[in-house]
Amino acid sequence: MRLAANAPVQSVADRVAEVADLVTVALDELLPRADGPESRLTEAMRYAALGPGKRLRPYFAMEASRLFDIEERPVLRAACALECVHAYSLVHDDLPCMDDDDMRRGRPTLHRAYDEATAVLAGDALQTAAFDIILHEDTHEDANIRCALAARLSLASGARGMAGGQMVDLLGVRDDLEGVARMQRLKTGALFSYAFEIPLIVARASERHCQALTDFAHDIGLAYQIVDDLLDFDGDEAVLGKAAQKDAAQGKTNFVTLLGVEQARHRVAQLADQARGHLDVFGPDAENLKASVDFVLNRRS
Amino acid sequence: MRLAANAPVQSVADRVAEVADLVTVALDELLPRADGPESRLTEAMRYAALGPGKRLRPYFAMEASRLFDIEERPVLRAACALECVHAYSLVHDDLPCMDDDDMRRGRPTLHRAYDEATAVLAGDALQTAAFDIILHEDTHEDANIRCALAARLSLASGARGMAGGQMVDLLGVRDDLEGVARMQRLKTGALFSYAFEIPLIVARASERHCQALTDFAHDIGLAYQIVDDLLDFDGDEAVLGKAAQKDAAQGKTNFVTLLGVEQARHRVAQLADQARGHLDVFGPDAENLKASVDFVLNRRS
Repeated sequence: MRLAANAPVQSVADRVAEVADLVTVALDELLPRADGPESRLTEAMRYAALGPGKRLRPYFAMEASRLFDIEERPVLRAACALECVHAYSLVHDDLPCMDDDDMRRGRPTLHRAYDEATAVLAGDALQTAAFDIILHEDTHEDANIRCALAARLSLASGARGMAGGQMVDLLGVRDDLEGVARMQRLKTGALFSYAFEIPLIVARASERHCQALTDFAHDIGLAYQIVDDLLDFDGDEAVLGKAAQKDAAQGKTNFVTLLGVEQARHRVAQLADQARGHLDVFGPDAENLKASVDFVLNRRS
Repeated sequence: MRLAANAPVQSVADRVAEVADLVTVALDELLPRADGPESRLTEAMRYAALGPGKRLRPYFAMEASRLFDIEERPVLRAACALECVHAYSLVHDDLPCMDDDDMRRGRPTLHRAYDEATAVLAGDALQTAAFDIILHEDTHEDANIRCALAARLSLASGARGMAGGQMVDLLGVRDDLEGVARMQRLKTGALFSYAFEIPLIVARASERHCQALTDFAHDIGLAYQIVDDLLDFDGDEAVLGKAAQKDAAQGKTNFVTLLGVEQARHRVAQLADQARGHLDVFGPDAENLKASVDFVLNRRS
């Protein structure tokens, strides 16, 4: 199946929901199953990866892929792998020795629903599953593409990406905007950017297109984090499905504590405009992606 | 550099020590470094991966590679990746919510030397580093080889390999020899076998050679685990560098509690003979590998 670049414009909400369903069905098929006592592990992995989630990163990967004349399958499989890494990071992030959270996406966190040891192992095995999914021959006939997809995911996830950002977050060393922005680039920005790298790799995109989507990913990722900090500041826990006011309670600085609410909102609007501007190079094909910016940033959870 | 199959016979101890040095030097170069506050994470990863260790799995990968006319570099890099996965599994295995161990390889475990959150993250990032190392173009010019090396590692590490075995171990569901053997195949056997898959993949080995080394890996891996259980039963903690009598203290069955010491020793000797027999297909080239069997199984730590 190919995604037509000039497909009729759907509402962003419909498209996000459609991709979320696609990803959940695909993940259900791709995640390992087991017969023996280790089925407790595979069930825990499913609890973490198949539960309710916005699937925003996969959405961006799929939506951006419509800018190119490429097959859906490699993008969907890599997007599923990205979602596995995202899910694993949340499971470990929620552990008692990390953020010690009881609720996630409106349900008990994995170590609450199961136990700590199972949560550690399920996170571990979800990371492994991510690479397993991408490296499988079904992802793409060209091993160079599979290798590139997996290598970029490892770069975005590891010590110089998400895990490194998590370490910085735990240490709480961020006195100024630059420090907070640097942490965001590592902790959440790297995986956000990977969502856009997926179609760029599969399409073997031009330097110009790579630059445009990389810039878009940077701005939208940063704006997304500022919105996250705004929701942590004044969001509704019932809508969020998790605890709010966490940074304040832990005495951590973030974009809102440093900028104030008004300035933070202004910066989000500014980044949104800037992000849309980067997409001009794609012409009318990028209308869906442009329309998704406000949808994503106006979220309440 | 190519490894000559007919290189002069070294003592096994010398060869094991030589490979251990090679791997430590290579890992030091391959593991990520960082400048910012996330350097705490990269230092913790180094603590776990560069500390004293027998490097037995890399040794087997390197020794088996001498059976084929292949370059050293891809094997060494994949062996380093395997060691990263092994190191990550020990770090998470030692956590308070898992085995709650204070000592490992004669030093404080990572969560004791640092803290629990750093240990979780360092284990996570070591797993990521393993895939990063293999997938890098420097490993092999052929992306098919890189993909195969990484895909087999993910299979051996995940829910249907090491992590699955860890889950079974935690649940303690193993009333009989079959249950204990099944757990061993998953928890330690899969990564042991991967050590031999590395040269087989790089050499694009024949079906006959694949079968011989797979059988060898199975027997030596199983014998190694029985020796582990024997050392847990009557080993010297000072020599082991970690706690002994752990299974008995936790009321867990293992090969020694089920077979008795004498039967267990007999089984090790039987497996050693059988393992050497599988190597006959390689002729005199396999003398080094055959000689390594007793060395590995006569270990005191």
